[in-house]
Amino acid sequence: MAFRVLTRTATGSQQQQQLKVLSDLLIRSFSSGPKNVGFIGLGNMGGPMASNLMAKGHKLHVFDISKDAKDSLKAKGAATYDNVAELAKASDFVVSMLPNNDIVADTYDTIINGGGVKSQTIFIDSSTIDPNVAKAVQKKVKAAGATFVDAPVSGGVPGAKNATLTFMVGGTADEYQAVKELLEGMGKKITHCGGYGMGQAAKVCNNMMLGISMCGLAECMNLAIRLGLDAKVFADIVNASTGRSWASEVNNPVPGIIPTAPAASDYAGGFATGLITKDLGIASAVATSSNSPIPLGALTHQIYRTLMAKGLANKDFSVVYDFLKNTEGK
Amino acid sequence: MAFRVLTRTATGSQQQQQLKVLSDLLIRSFSSGPKNVGFIGLGNMGGPMASNLMAKGHKLHVFDISKDAKDSLKAKGAATYDNVAELAKASDFVVSMLPNNDIVADTYDTIINGGGVKSQTIFIDSSTIDPNVAKAVQKKVKAAGATFVDAPVSGGVPGAKNATLTFMVGGTADEYQAVKELLEGMGKKITHCGGYGMGQAAKVCNNMMLGISMCGLAECMNLAIRLGLDAKVFADIVNASTGRSWASEVNNPVPGIIPTAPAASDYAGGFATGLITKDLGIASAVATSSNSPIPLGALTHQIYRTLMAKGLANKDFSVVYDFLKNTEGK
Amino acid sequence: MAFRVLTRTATGSQQQQQLKVLSDLLIRSFSSGPKNVGFIGLGNMGGPMASNLMAKGHKLHVFDISKDAKDSLKAKGAATYDNVAELAKASDFVVSMLPNNDIVADTYDTIINGGGVKSQTIFIDSSTIDPNVAKAVQKKVKAAGATFVDAPVSGGVPGAKNATLTFMVGGTADEYQAVKELLEGMGKKITHCGGYGMGQAAKVCNNMMLGISMCGLAECMNLAIRLGLDAKVFADIVNASTGRSWASEVNNPVPGIIPTAPAASDYAGGFATGLITKDLGIASAVATSSNSPIPLGALTHQIYRTLMAKGLANKDFSVVYDFLKNTEGK
Amino acid sequence: MAFRVLTRTATGSQQQQQLKVLSDLLIRSFSSGPKNVGFIGLGNMGGPMASNLMAKGHKLHVFDISKDAKDSLKAKGAATYDNVAELAKASDFVVSMLPNNDIVADTYDTIINGGGVKSQTIFIDSSTIDPNVAKAVQKKVKAAGATFVDAPVSGGVPGAKNATLTFMVGGTADEYQAVKELLEGMGKKITHCGGYGMGQAAKVCNNMMLGISMCGLAECMNLAIRLGLDAKVFADIVNASTGRSWASEVNNPVPGIIPTAPAASDYAGGFATGLITKDLGIASAVATSSNSPIPLGALTHQIYRTLMAKGLANKDFSVVYDFLKNTEGK
Repeated sequence: MAFRVLTRTATGSQQQQQLKVLSDLLIRSFSSGPKNVGFIGLGNMGGPMASNLMAKGHKLHVFDISKDAKDSLKAKGAATYDNVAELAKASDFVVSMLPNNDIVADTYDTIINGGGVKSQTIFIDSSTIDPNVAKAVQKKVKAAGATFVDAPVSGGVPGAKNATLTFMVGGTADEYQAVKELLEGMGKKITHCGGYGMGQAAKVCNNMMLGISMCGLAECMNLAIRLGLDAKVFADIVNASTGRSWASEVNNPVPGIIPTAPAASDYAGGFATGLITKDLGIASAVATSSNSPIPLGALTHQIYRTLMAKGLANKDFSVVYDFLKNTEGK
Repeated sequence: MAFRVLTRTATGSQQQQQLKVLSDLLIRSFSSGPKNVGFIGLGNMGGPMASNLMAKGHKLHVFDISKDAKDSLKAKGAATYDNVAELAKASDFVVSMLPNNDIVADTYDTIINGGGVKSQTIFIDSSTIDPNVAKAVQKKVKAAGATFVDAPVSGGVPGAKNATLTFMVGGTADEYQAVKELLEGMGKKITHCGGYGMGQAAKVCNNMMLGISMCGLAECMNLAIRLGLDAKVFADIVNASTGRSWASEVNNPVPGIIPTAPAASDYAGGFATGLITKDLGIASAVATSSNSPIPLGALTHQIYRTLMAKGLANKDFSVVYDFLKNTEGK
Repeated sequence: MAFRVLTRTATGSQQQQQLKVLSDLLIRSFSSGPKNVGFIGLGNMGGPMASNLMAKGHKLHVFDISKDAKDSLKAKGAATYDNVAELAKASDFVVSMLPNNDIVADTYDTIINGGGVKSQTIFIDSSTIDPNVAKAVQKKVKAAGATFVDAPVSGGVPGAKNATLTFMVGGTADEYQAVKELLEGMGKKITHCGGYGMGQAAKVCNNMMLGISMCGLAECMNLAIRLGLDAKVFADIVNASTGRSWASEVNNPVPGIIPTAPAASDYAGGFATGLITKDLGIASAVATSSNSPIPLGALTHQIYRTLMAKGLANKDFSVVYDFLKNTEGK
Repeated sequence: MAFRVLTRTATGSQQQQQLKVLSDLLIRSFSSGPKNVGFIGLGNMGGPMASNLMAKGHKLHVFDISKDAKDSLKAKGAATYDNVAELAKASDFVVSMLPNNDIVADTYDTIINGGGVKSQTIFIDSSTIDPNVAKAVQKKVKAAGATFVDAPVSGGVPGAKNATLTFMVGGTADEYQAVKELLEGMGKKITHCGGYGMGQAAKVCNNMMLGISMCGLAECMNLAIRLGLDAKVFADIVNASTGRSWASEVNNPVPGIIPTAPAASDYAGGFATGLITKDLGIASAVATSSNSPIPLGALTHQIYRTLMAKGLANKDFSVVYDFLKNTEGK
C-alpha cells in the first residue's frame, strides 16, 4: 500500500496533522489483530454481517431499534448500546446498514451531536442511499474530524450470511485500503469505485441496468412464447446470442428454465421487488438532480412501482414476467 | 439423422408420397457433392454469402434487381437470371436474402406463379421478416409442392463475409437437417428454433432484447459518468456484476472503453440503427398481433425511431449513448 | 356544391366520361328521394346504423356472416343477401362496417371479383382500419370503375343508435359532397379530412391522443389522491387549468366524479379497452411505416395491452385508473 | 366568511388562544387598508408580483440576492432588506417566490432562527416545490407561532405582470379566507385546494398532465402530418373531438396553427422547457415517495430531460414537436 504524497501546499502543522491521519489509517489497516467494531442496523442483512465479523475475532458493539435484534447478537458476545454516539466512542470502525436516506442522515447527526466521533474512527456506511446524501454525510463526519466511506453491497441475504457480498467503496485510495481487510470479513469482492459517493453511484447505476435487463427479458420471453417458441429453446438461443445478460443466464423469469432461479419456486427468495423499486427510486432521484435522461430506467421504475401497487413487493423481481404474461387465453 | 415416424393415419399412397419427400431430403442432405444453388438478393449480406457458397464448390444461379450486383457474381462464375422462376427451376436449393415482408412475399408469388417450384427444391429465406409472413409463404410453397424454411441470420456484414453467421432455422427437424450442411457453407452456427416462422420469431425476440440492453446501457453509462464515476471503472464493475450483458461486454457505447467497438470510430460499422429499428418494428407488429405487452421494447423502438428522424440511420446502434448524453454543460 | 374543373389534358372522350361520373355524383347527391343502400356488417354498430337509414326511407340490402343479424334487419323490411357482389349490384351506395383490415380487404376483393362494382356506385367504408389499407382498397375499386371513400366514425354504440355519430371522410371534395347527405342519416357531424385514407388517419391520430389523455389523467388523479388531494376538488382544478382535456371533462376515470361516466358503473359501457387497444395498434403500425416517433402513444398501447392481458378488454378504457391505483395500503 | 367551530376538546386557555388566532386572521382579512407585505424573491415572477401589490397600495418590504432586483423595487417605493428575519419582523404578510426546495427551506430556517416570526404574521410561499417540503416548512413556522400556507401559481410571467395569475392555496379554510384578498392583488383566480401542501400537490399534478398532453399532442400532430393530413384540418378535428385538450386548443405545437402560440415565433416565450422539466422532477419525486405509478408522467419527464440535454431549456415546452419531427426526408 503506497500512500499518496502529502498536499504540497499544506503548512507545517497541517502536514503533521495529515501525517497523523495517514499513520492512523496505516496502523489500523496493517494490524491484523481484532478490532472494536460498531455495527448499527441488525436486520436481515446487518445481523449476519455483524455475526461474520464476530466470527473473524472482532469485538462487536451493536445497536438496533429492535431489542430482539440486539439480544440475538448479545447472545453471541456483542456489547449492546441504546445510544449510537456511545457505541461510536467505543469503536475503531463503525459499520451502518440502514434502510434509507433519512435514517442514515439522522443516525450520523446523532453520533456527531452526541460527541461520538473520534479522529481515528472509520465510519463505513453499507446502506443503499442517494450518492448525494452519502457525500453530505461524509462532509459532516470529516468536519467532525473522522473518516467516512460509502460501501453499499450486492449479493443479498445469502451473500450476507455466507460472507460473499460485493462491496462498492467510495473514498480515497488510502481509505479504500484502510477498510478492505475489515470488509473482507463480510464479503469476497471489495471494489474501489472512486471518490465519496461513488460506491453508491456504482450500485444504483448497476442496479438500474439490472432492472432494465429483467423487465426487458420478461417481455422478450413472453413474446417468444406467445409467438410459438419453446421457452427453453429460446432461452438457450438468447444465452448464445447478443441478447444475453446476467438475468438471462442466472435468473430467467420463466418457471422451469433454471431450476435454481426464484421463478422455480413461485418467485420466493431472490432480490425483492420492493428492493429493486427502492434502488430505481434512487436512480430516478439522482437522474433528476443531474439532469440525465433515463427513459428505460424510468419506465422500469414505473413498472416495478405498479407491481408494488399489486402487492408483489416481497416476490423476486423476476415476477415481472408473471405480471406481463396473459392471464386470459390468446 | 433419424427421421420422424410416418404419419400413422396416412393412406398407402400418402405414405408413399411422404417416403419420397423424405428420401429426397435424405439424398440431398447426405450427398456432399456440389449443388445447384439459386440466390436471390445480392446486397451487402447476400453478395458475400453467395460468394462463400461458390467457394465451397456449389454452382450458383443468381438474381438481383441491380445488374452490377449480378455482374459481380457472374465474374466469379455464377449464372445470372432476369427471372426468379427460371432461376428456381435450375436449382436444388434457393436462398433468398431480401429487405422486407412485401418483397419476400412478392418474390415467392412470382416464383410460384411462374412455375418455378419443383417438388425436390428447398427454399431457404434468410431475410429478416415478420414470422407470420414467413408462415404464409411456407404454406404457399408447400401447397405448390416444395419445401420452405425460414433461416434469418445474425452476425452482420462481417459474418457474411467471413462465413461466421448464425442461422436461426424454422422448420421440421428433418428440414433442419436437410439445410444444415448448405448453411454451414455460410455460417458457423446453425440453430434449430422450432417450426415454421420460429427462426424469424427467435431473431426478432433476441434483437428486441439486444435493443433494450443497448439503450439501457447507454442510459446507465451516461448517468454513471454524470454522477462522477470513471467510465472505464464503472464498465468493469458492470461486467463483473448483475448488470452485465453482451452489450456491456462487447459493444460498450462510450468511446474509449472498448477499442474494437464502433464507439471508438465515431459509431461507424457495426449494427446500423436503421436495422435495429427495422427489427423493433417487426417486434412491435408481432407483439400487436399476439397481444403481448412489450413496454420497454416499444419504448426502445420509439427511441431508435427518434434517432432515425435525426439522421443517424447508418450509425451503429450504440450511437444512442451519444444521443442521450448532454451536449450542454451540467 | 362546386365541382372542380375537368382535367385540362383529357381527351374528348375522357372528358365525356368525367362529365358522366360527375353528373352521376350530382344526381345522387341532390336527389333527396330514397336510395338503394347496401350494408355489409350488421354488428353492434352496423345494425343500428342500417336501421337508421331505413328510418330515413332508404331501401336496404344487407349482409352479415350472422343469419340472426340479417334476419333482424329483414324483419324491418331489408333485403338480405348471401353474396356481397350481388348486394353491391343492387345498390347505389354500399356502406361497410367491418372489424379489421383483412376482412375489409377480403370483402372488397370478393365484390370486385364477383363483378359487383358498377360505375355509379359509391362505396363507403366506415370500419376503422389502417389508412394504407383504405388507400389500397380505394385504388382497386377505382380501377374497377367505381368510387370509394373511407369514413370511419366516432361516437360508439350510443352514437350509432341515436344517429349522432361523427364521420371522418377521406376522399375528394366532390366525393365528400356526394356522401354527406346519406351519412347525415346516421350521424350529426360529417367532416372532410382530406384525400383517400385521411378519414382513417384522422381517426387513428385522434384516438391515440385520446388514449394518451386517459392514461395520463388516470396517473394524475391517482397521484393527486395519494398525495392527499380530494378527488373532486382536484378534478375541478384540472378542468379549470392547463391540464384539462375531453377525458377530464367528460370521462374522469375516478368513480364518483362524474355520475354519467362509466367509472360510476364499474366501467361498464363506454369505449371498450379492446377497441382503444385496436386503434393504438393501428397507430403503432402506421407510425412504424411512416417512421414517426410516438413514445407516449407506444407506451399507452403497451399499458392497454397489459390491461387486455388482465382480462379487462370489455371494460371502458377509463378502467386504466383502477388498474394503476394501489390495491395495497399506502 | 364563516369560521369553523372551535376545537371541542380544547381547554379554556387553548380556546382563548384559538380565538385570538382566529380574530387576528379576521382582522387582517377584513381590514381592507394597506398592509405591510414582505416579499422574498424578486425574479421574473416575483418582481412584477411585488410591483402589483404596491400598485394596490400595500407597503412592500423586499429581499433578493440580487441588489439590482431590490433596487428596482426600491425605486418604486419599497423598503429593502439584507436580512429576511428583519424583513419578516416588519411585515403582516410575507410572500416568498423562490427557485427550489432547498432555497425555500433555508430561507424559512433563517427567518425562524433570526427571530423573524411573529404570531400574527401570515407566510405565503408561492414557489413551486415538493408538497412534502411545504408541509415540513408549515410545521416549523407553526411551531414558531405563526401561519404558513403554500400558494403556488400558474400563468407564467404574463400572468405575473398582468395580475392574472391563478393561485392554488393549501391551508385551512380560514387561512384561505385570510390570504384571498391579498392574493387577488396579484391574480384573478384564488383556489382552495385543501390542507397544507395541497396547493403544491395540485400544481404538480396539473402540470404533469399538461406535460403529458403536450408531448402526446406533439406526437399526434407529427404522425398526422406524416400520414398526409393537413395540420390545420387535423387540429380542428382534434379540437372538435375526444382528443381535445388545453394544449390542442391554446398551444398547438405546430407552427402556423395558432398565430398567438409560441410555435409561431420559434418557440420563444411561453412556458419554458426548463420549468416543465422541474415540475416533472417534483412529480417524479412525490410519485416515488407515495409509491404511485406514473408511466406516462415519467416518460414525459425523460423526454423533456432529453430536450434539456439538447440545449432547449429556454424554449417553450411545445418545442417537443420540433424535436420529434423528422429532420431527414421521409
